[in-house]
Amino acid sequence: MATTSTARTAPSVTGHPADRLLDAIERVGSPVCVGIDPVWSKLPAVLRRSLPEVVGIQRFSEGVVDAVAGRAAAVKLQSACFERYGAEGFAALAAVAARARSRDLVVILDAKRGDIGVSAEHYAEAARGRFDADWTTVNGYLGPEGFAPFRRGRGAFVLVRTSNPDGGLVQSLRLDDGRTVAEAVAEMVAKAGDESVGASGFSDVGAVVGATHPADAAALRRRMPRQIFLVPGFGAQGGSADDVRACFRGDGRGAVITASRSVIFAFEPESEHWIDAVAEAAARFRAEVAEVVRAPR
Amino acid sequence: MATTSTARTAPSVTGHPADRLLDAIERVGSPVCVGIDPVWSKLPAVLRRSLPEVVGIQRFSEGVVDAVAGRAAAVKLQSACFERYGAEGFAALAAVAARARSRDLVVILDAKRGDIGVSAEHYAEAARGRFDADWTTVNGYLGPEGFAPFRRGRGAFVLVRTSNPDGGLVQSLRLDDGRTVAEAVAEMVAKAGDESVGASGFSDVGAVVGATHPADAAALRRRMPRQIFLVPGFGAQGGSADDVRACFRGDGRGAVITASRSVIFAFEPESEHWIDAVAEAAARFRAEVAEVVRAPR
Repeated sequence: MATTSTARTAPSVTGHPADRLLDAIERVGSPVCVGIDPVWSKLPAVLRRSLPEVVGIQRFSEGVVDAVAGRAAAVKLQSACFERYGAEGFAALAAVAARARSRDLVVILDAKRGDIGVSAEHYAEAARGRFDADWTTVNGYLGPEGFAPFRRGRGAFVLVRTSNPDGGLVQSLRLDDGRTVAEAVAEMVAKAGDESVGASGFSDVGAVVGATHPADAAALRRRMPRQIFLVPGFGAQGGSADDVRACFRGDGRGAVITASRSVIFAFEPESEHWIDAVAEAAARFRAEVAEVVRAPR
Repeated sequence: MATTSTARTAPSVTGHPADRLLDAIERVGSPVCVGIDPVWSKLPAVLRRSLPEVVGIQRFSEGVVDAVAGRAAAVKLQSACFERYGAEGFAALAAVAARARSRDLVVILDAKRGDIGVSAEHYAEAARGRFDADWTTVNGYLGPEGFAPFRRGRGAFVLVRTSNPDGGLVQSLRLDDGRTVAEAVAEMVAKAGDESVGASGFSDVGAVVGATHPADAAALRRRMPRQIFLVPGFGAQGGSADDVRACFRGDGRGAVITASRSVIFAFEPESEHWIDAVAEAAARFRAEVAEVVRAPR
């Protein structure tokens, strides 16, 4: 047996998860989320020289949390980047999540889990009990029972339309009623989500919608008026301001724009002041997206 | 930081993953896999009385591995049941996987991961480097780039048609060309899988096909002649011998039937001899499925 010291975090949240996320957006003045996808080869040299790999990944991620606190509403933690280090990586992920929560950041666990029955319950228990995640990304291919356990005071972002090159192979297939598969998944999400809508008017079931298909995003927005869209792909992954505009409702609410590499790796490899550089990149990202939201439509 | 002692397993396999699985089936004389989905409340009283929860989960799973070795071709390890215990659970899962490999069982990691780019690479690295898994279950909603990293000497079972009540909500939608979504995913899987076919004639991309929709299974079999079907749901989950027959090719090959609860919990809670009871249940399961394969069609 391993002898890890991972304390189980006592769940600490109150209120509806959509309201908590919208409150955080209000607080920082821009609907932005920073994706923490740490990769050892891209870390600052000062960490790479002095630390074992998984320790470096944790320290770097904690530094990013400190840099973006007060500038971003949420952080999205990429589970894969930690899981590749096994049990130690799992412990590091829990530590980073706890640090984010202590800095008043909404924690989105980007785990893309998707199972049923007792397995789905267990995954949800991990997201809640180990990482104290406000929201978890999940795959909807198995239907609403795959994401139901991730609700109950927390939120689930269901993959609806992803921006990767292969994403359309399944998601853009055309049904006999004229909808795409992604649009059918969107309607399933909207229907399931109506069971729990917060004071903000948004549901505890949100949708992952990639930033590089603005026409698709507009069609999905119409089908999911009460879903918060989690929109990855801003910046390094190719999404522009125009691409993300379609993800918002007419009132400028309802989407959280995520940037990862363009913020967290915004430093020179040899810089000693990498945290400052990340903080500046986060501030620029916040301002840029705030401008998109304010722009007349 | 946690101070786990999880040694990183040196990958140890050679040959094509489909050939390895079919060889194991040949060796035990029946295409059966035992699903290890341990749940604390169902463990033998003798373990529950004396051990902390995650230690009990590990010991139980190792006992199941010993009981089914030589009787099953493979074990399917349900990642969720371990992940719920955080870093310690991750370490326990690695230990159980190592035990299974040492007993000549093919290791199927039931993780249902699904991501893209560097995240998919990291998940695949975890499956390979931490758990030394021969095969991993993955979700195909993001397209072939989501499961490509899980290949390279290992195999990926892509979710095509699941047997849960909600499974049809997306998977049975009808496309404008008459196919269901599951059938379209099947063709995507077959096409991607053709890139790597072993000496056995089967691909390193397989398909998860639930046991409770025989008509669906037959339609999927026609579309995926070179895919090994991983068929959960035999026994406790409702699938019968007739239900699974349609998953095999005409030559009686090409499917691996999985039973979980009906084998691993086949003991009286107070029994001291629970390992013997699991071994007997595995032997019955092996004989029952061998009968299905031999039956004239």
